[in-house]
Amino acid sequence: MAKPFTITCPVPAGPADCVMLAHGGGGKLMHQLLEQCVLPVFDSRELEARHDGAVLDVGSTRLAFTTDSYVVSPLFFPGGDIGTLAVNGTVNDLAMCGARPLALSTAFIIEEGLSFDTLKRVLNSIAGAAREAGIKVVTGDTKVVDRGKGDGLFVNTAGIGVIEHEQVIAPASVRAGDAVLLSGDVGRHGVAIMAVREGLEFETTIESDCAPLAPPVHALLEGAIEIHCLRDLTRGGLATGLIEIAETSRLHIEIREQDVAVEENVRGACEILGLDPLYLANEGRFIAVVPEKQAARALEIMRNHAVSSAAFRIGSVTQAPASLVTLECCIGTRRILDMHSGEQLPRIC
Amino acid sequence: MAKPFTITCPVPAGPADCVMLAHGGGGKLMHQLLEQCVLPVFDSRELEARHDGAVLDVGSTRLAFTTDSYVVSPLFFPGGDIGTLAVNGTVNDLAMCGARPLALSTAFIIEEGLSFDTLKRVLNSIAGAAREAGIKVVTGDTKVVDRGKGDGLFVNTAGIGVIEHEQVIAPASVRAGDAVLLSGDVGRHGVAIMAVREGLEFETTIESDCAPLAPPVHALLEGAIEIHCLRDLTRGGLATGLIEIAETSRLHIEIREQDVAVEENVRGACEILGLDPLYLANEGRFIAVVPEKQAARALEIMRNHAVSSAAFRIGSVTQAPASLVTLECCIGTRRILDMHSGEQLPRIC
Repeated sequence: MAKPFTITCPVPAGPADCVMLAHGGGGKLMHQLLEQCVLPVFDSRELEARHDGAVLDVGSTRLAFTTDSYVVSPLFFPGGDIGTLAVNGTVNDLAMCGARPLALSTAFIIEEGLSFDTLKRVLNSIAGAAREAGIKVVTGDTKVVDRGKGDGLFVNTAGIGVIEHEQVIAPASVRAGDAVLLSGDVGRHGVAIMAVREGLEFETTIESDCAPLAPPVHALLEGAIEIHCLRDLTRGGLATGLIEIAETSRLHIEIREQDVAVEENVRGACEILGLDPLYLANEGRFIAVVPEKQAARALEIMRNHAVSSAAFRIGSVTQAPASLVTLECCIGTRRILDMHSGEQLPRIC
Repeated sequence: MAKPFTITCPVPAGPADCVMLAHGGGGKLMHQLLEQCVLPVFDSRELEARHDGAVLDVGSTRLAFTTDSYVVSPLFFPGGDIGTLAVNGTVNDLAMCGARPLALSTAFIIEEGLSFDTLKRVLNSIAGAAREAGIKVVTGDTKVVDRGKGDGLFVNTAGIGVIEHEQVIAPASVRAGDAVLLSGDVGRHGVAIMAVREGLEFETTIESDCAPLAPPVHALLEGAIEIHCLRDLTRGGLATGLIEIAETSRLHIEIREQDVAVEENVRGACEILGLDPLYLANEGRFIAVVPEKQAARALEIMRNHAVSSAAFRIGSVTQAPASLVTLECCIGTRRILDMHSGEQLPRIC
């Protein structure tokens, strides 16, 4: 077997004392920002866990709590808009904690001059996506900023979910020998946004995969699958999601490139544009890490749901080399997946 | 007694199909936006309640859940900054539901080019304010937008609190005969922001009243005060807070102008600038509506806490004229307090 090699990405040049666009990309710079600026200030076990949401014990109830702001540009794109994104993104973070979505807050920062039509379209999307995901919008806030001090509309959602099982679904629960399952093809959300932003046209429109992920997760829980870890693949894509798990669990994740599905259109766009589909954002894909002996049954359950009907096993967890993700390429070589410094496409969500 | 008269504020001119700055002001236009755009889209009992936060029953636990985005300009001002505001604003909304603050989320929308020094200063403020308020930051998010598409920093916080009593603290619980208590002087936050923004100087610096309000609220609960309603007086000030309660409870609130404390500096600034202190934003003041027979005891409890040491009874609730707030002026006349269309000072929080 060939020795794995690393392709590293240089940190983009910029003033060292300022936040750059790449700090919001979900990659290395963002992790640096978190580790150097945010985490040392807060003495918070929940933040240190670096999970998609926090898990809280309130009396006899176990809650999941999560938040995300959405600054996607443009506001509307094939397969969704900032409203569907703001609901599904947060609902999916709850699902990744194994929680049943319960209540959602929505907060709007509107730039003066946004048309009521646009606002109503987004509000309707939020209401529709919330209905579909089975979560209720219970509280909210609206702020307006001067023209030129925003970008049309930013949306924040925070979500509360209830955890009704005893499993500890987190990177720390991952074990050597586990199987790594991927719920479907990757890269569609990133290319869909890119295509609208850059005016690219393909033979068929590439739609974002934006969708709620709670149903397959709950089916796995009800099917008595021992879920070790879940991660939805947003900013930073599949590669970053896997790297975060490998680093936190201090184990090795081995992935086969040929088993990671990428739609033909998406692959074509990536080749032309020099993008790597493994790092492209998704909004309706997740990985599930489960014990080897339950992998086949877990795949079967996932495939029963439209959103994860193309679920596939893409790799395994092993002991060493610790904290690394390696990719067995189609041509037989192996390479280490390294975290990008920023995001290939800024403001993707 | 003279017949009360109304001073109405014209709706500012602007394109009818666009959101204007005044829609974010907490006044009439904002209520119109909520009633015409937001509430019809969501079928939500919790949103309809129009309280500072939503109250949710989760198993045997009663939770309060609330969110606010903060877009204050400038980011730093005497008495606080966007960080202290983002913690206290949300913690106070939880307190107004009678909830004990439990967990906070923080989400940042950073404009590219913000200095790390500024970011760290705000993060430290958040950590300090959270410690002081006894709430833990458990989850968060960071997004970066291009230069010129934001305004330095916007912060969203969402908060979860636990309600450990059986009282229903809400506008609907207000009864004719109740006493209206105000926790301190009004208008300081608004004038503090205005002074920095406009470069105004006073003999002594006017500091924002930004502070956590949970301690006096919990002391009232522990003192067996039957609290009918609480409201912190942020955007729209004392007048708007009272009008919202009068409209939701369909009762009349009668206030004596001479009993509403306004610091001399604040009153002076208002006179020069043509501002009404009753409509100026506060970030550490609240009203408590309690039964007449418990008013004296409630005031005593509130005065035991630094943040409400100057608490005073400012009026009463009566049956009619329904849904109105009237002010008995110092010169003996009475006038109806009408909601402003927007906010005297935009981006105050």
